[in-house]
Amino acid sequence: MSREHLLSISDLGREGIEGVMQLADSFKEVARRPIPKVPTLRGRTVATLFFEASTRTRLSFETAARRLSADVMTFVASSSSLEKGESLRDTVETIDAMGIDAMVVRHRSAGVPSQVTGWTSAAVVNAGDGQHEHPTQALLDCYTIREALSEKMGRELSTDFSGLRIGIVGDICFSRVARSDVLAFSLLGADVTLIAPRTLLPPSLEGWPATATADLDGVLDDLDVVYLLRIQAERAGQVLLPELDEYHSRFGLTRERAARLRKETLVMHPGPMIRGVEIAPEAADLPGSLVTRQVRNGVLVRSAVLLRLLSGTAAGGVDASEEPGA
Amino acid sequence: MSREHLLSISDLGREGIEGVMQLADSFKEVARRPIPKVPTLRGRTVATLFFEASTRTRLSFETAARRLSADVMTFVASSSSLEKGESLRDTVETIDAMGIDAMVVRHRSAGVPSQVTGWTSAAVVNAGDGQHEHPTQALLDCYTIREALSEKMGRELSTDFSGLRIGIVGDICFSRVARSDVLAFSLLGADVTLIAPRTLLPPSLEGWPATATADLDGVLDDLDVVYLLRIQAERAGQVLLPELDEYHSRFGLTRERAARLRKETLVMHPGPMIRGVEIAPEAADLPGSLVTRQVRNGVLVRSAVLLRLLSGTAAGGVDASEEPGA
Amino acid sequence: MSREHLLSISDLGREGIEGVMQLADSFKEVARRPIPKVPTLRGRTVATLFFEASTRTRLSFETAARRLSADVMTFVASSSSLEKGESLRDTVETIDAMGIDAMVVRHRSAGVPSQVTGWTSAAVVNAGDGQHEHPTQALLDCYTIREALSEKMGRELSTDFSGLRIGIVGDICFSRVARSDVLAFSLLGADVTLIAPRTLLPPSLEGWPATATADLDGVLDDLDVVYLLRIQAERAGQVLLPELDEYHSRFGLTRERAARLRKETLVMHPGPMIRGVEIAPEAADLPGSLVTRQVRNGVLVRSAVLLRLLSGTAAGGVDASEEPGA
Repeated sequence: MSREHLLSISDLGREGIEGVMQLADSFKEVARRPIPKVPTLRGRTVATLFFEASTRTRLSFETAARRLSADVMTFVASSSSLEKGESLRDTVETIDAMGIDAMVVRHRSAGVPSQVTGWTSAAVVNAGDGQHEHPTQALLDCYTIREALSEKMGRELSTDFSGLRIGIVGDICFSRVARSDVLAFSLLGADVTLIAPRTLLPPSLEGWPATATADLDGVLDDLDVVYLLRIQAERAGQVLLPELDEYHSRFGLTRERAARLRKETLVMHPGPMIRGVEIAPEAADLPGSLVTRQVRNGVLVRSAVLLRLLSGTAAGGVDASEEPGA
Repeated sequence: MSREHLLSISDLGREGIEGVMQLADSFKEVARRPIPKVPTLRGRTVATLFFEASTRTRLSFETAARRLSADVMTFVASSSSLEKGESLRDTVETIDAMGIDAMVVRHRSAGVPSQVTGWTSAAVVNAGDGQHEHPTQALLDCYTIREALSEKMGRELSTDFSGLRIGIVGDICFSRVARSDVLAFSLLGADVTLIAPRTLLPPSLEGWPATATADLDGVLDDLDVVYLLRIQAERAGQVLLPELDEYHSRFGLTRERAARLRKETLVMHPGPMIRGVEIAPEAADLPGSLVTRQVRNGVLVRSAVLLRLLSGTAAGGVDASEEPGA
Repeated sequence: MSREHLLSISDLGREGIEGVMQLADSFKEVARRPIPKVPTLRGRTVATLFFEASTRTRLSFETAARRLSADVMTFVASSSSLEKGESLRDTVETIDAMGIDAMVVRHRSAGVPSQVTGWTSAAVVNAGDGQHEHPTQALLDCYTIREALSEKMGRELSTDFSGLRIGIVGDICFSRVARSDVLAFSLLGADVTLIAPRTLLPPSLEGWPATATADLDGVLDDLDVVYLLRIQAERAGQVLLPELDEYHSRFGLTRERAARLRKETLVMHPGPMIRGVEIAPEAADLPGSLVTRQVRNGVLVRSAVLLRLLSGTAAGGVDASEEPGA
């Protein structure tokens, strides 16, 4: 992680990822308090600038900010001056000028969060930019795997994923989640397999430290983690719709495939899940499914990221004191 | 009231209603303080999940939550993952996983808040489900009548409505307000008359402890409370529109009918009022009109409901101490 | 400023403007604190009622309210009961009944904020009403000029603008900003020139203490402040669109005109700027451009206005103590 921004997993390195994990651990304890807050960022303002709708991710960041007692400023693109023709840069500079400390940015174009760093003195967090990256998703995924492995194997919490076999299934090509996850998982030592029809794989695997296959059934039994992605039917349009059934039977976690999984295999999905397409309705509720745990950990990890960026120190922990007046 | 949720007036019973009324009384005192807040729910989070637009009710709940120092998480359905095909259940489980204590749910389908209780560990409050119920509306209506009777008659505050004649006028059949009100008013001993054209009455009065008539003028002079409902023209579509004038003359509180009311007759409406349809423009501002008082009391009653659900005790009162730092 | 509302610059007078400026100065110091807040309005609620979309102005007011530790209630017109046919008056009375202290109102019709004062006991701030006024914009513009003059000239902060030549360029006729600015600037002693094609000037200059011309190049060299307005292309519709190029060449701050400006000439714009129409892309980033400073000062000035209205005293300063628990 650069000192000031979180744009890509590649900024972080293995040590950076581990630092976020440990800071997130301290928020786990905070979440169990009667008043699940620390006063650390009291009076600081975190702005969410979502130029692409995403209630789920936005609420996660805003909840993470409130756990640190920060104020939240929500910018909704659809009702904004952008519709009157204002440039993205002027919008960002306007929000910046109101006095904010962090800017959480989602945009349909790759690279926008990086551009934004030139227009604000606030710390910038990439909350998803086009088909590029979504680094906090990868961090919460790492955190969730680390936690589940510790619980299942009864071993210490560890970010050493050596020997772990992770399969990412689905719309790899258009997915910023896939890119950030592959980078993070491989940094931590995991073996990553991309599983998708050729049309949904990247044209080249250069820069993707992973192998690829179109044969889910051929690799399924070897996987420790099955990570499913959403088919973005709303982007593909009706062209893809007649094929959704076929997709489900070839690449979905059908009921049959779910039954084949070993008890300790982990099933993950970044949400929103479309049951019946990438996952059978019943499979989403398997005991091995970590989907809601991913959401819960998302708040912890994003609190850790915001704290780290705004306190400007990788060593900083959570202030031990509770909220005043508790 | 069940210990954990408020889905229907029938969960409550007379004693439950009385408990809420008394708790709401203590918030009346809080509202007069220079800082109208108590720290009771500091650090707890109340999420509003409105799958059907309603600024009025949502803001009332959110204001009620803030008076208890709770944090508010606002979920707006239209910009959410539901549009991408996520199931209602997955949406609820996602919000739940972020760590919330109460979920206030409005949905166009009857029974959704009840289903939601199976998907979250939070307390669920029904804020209106289809044509089924809207229990906090009924509670604030009871509270407003109890208050007005005490002031007008110079008697003690009492939830004994024996002998009180209440007429509910209008779109009974499609109204969740009517159903909750009839249940609550009759539990407290009132005589309830439903006044509507046959097409807007329920097909059968089974389960409705009330009598019905289409003759407003025949019963108007006997009523202590005239409770008007909104004609939901946006649901009925253009079919009903040519008849709005006729509706007004037969079932509206016209200027002539308003003039006939006794001085102490109470006029109520859950809002939004459509002046010129169910009520004459002037009639809405009668001295007997309790409409804005209903809104004010809505905040008190909803604070009481949230406190009761989240403190888990029917006996709990408002913490006497003011906000720290006041 | 009347004791209770801020509807028009003409309510204020020169002394009123100066009072706001001085109060805003004290918020400048607050903004530099580690926790940039004062507890003065803790527990009070500021409601923003925007019947016309404006993220920029709404967020500025909400940020200003939070710096005073007030709670914020956001009313978004589009999802409201107004769509069901509720009257504006009933909407306002409903918000009022929930218990608020100030109402910040924007509406497409002139005079609405003034009407609103009759329907609420809260202090009302006009945040833009049709083509009438936008007084806080004028106040922040005065504050920004006062600050820039002091810095550039090395003189004391002063609201005496005698001898200052200000040109307001563009869509004067339809602009509430222009009207409020002309009133404020001339109250402080400045000479104001309106520069626009005849079709965008008011039909008569009665009530506009300013002179008018269509010859930008004839006056440009004499101006100390060039204040550009947005061409409201979304209102004018396609009729104007073919003329935007011509508008830019005759009335825009082109690159050539920008090069002619003296070093100390101030360039201002209320935002959102449409680069390429009223201003050349490069010109918006001139050293003399005060655009982002206008946004920053907007928060200070609006904090001052809210404090003044809600503390009910023109003499009141910012409470010196920091946020409790800081």
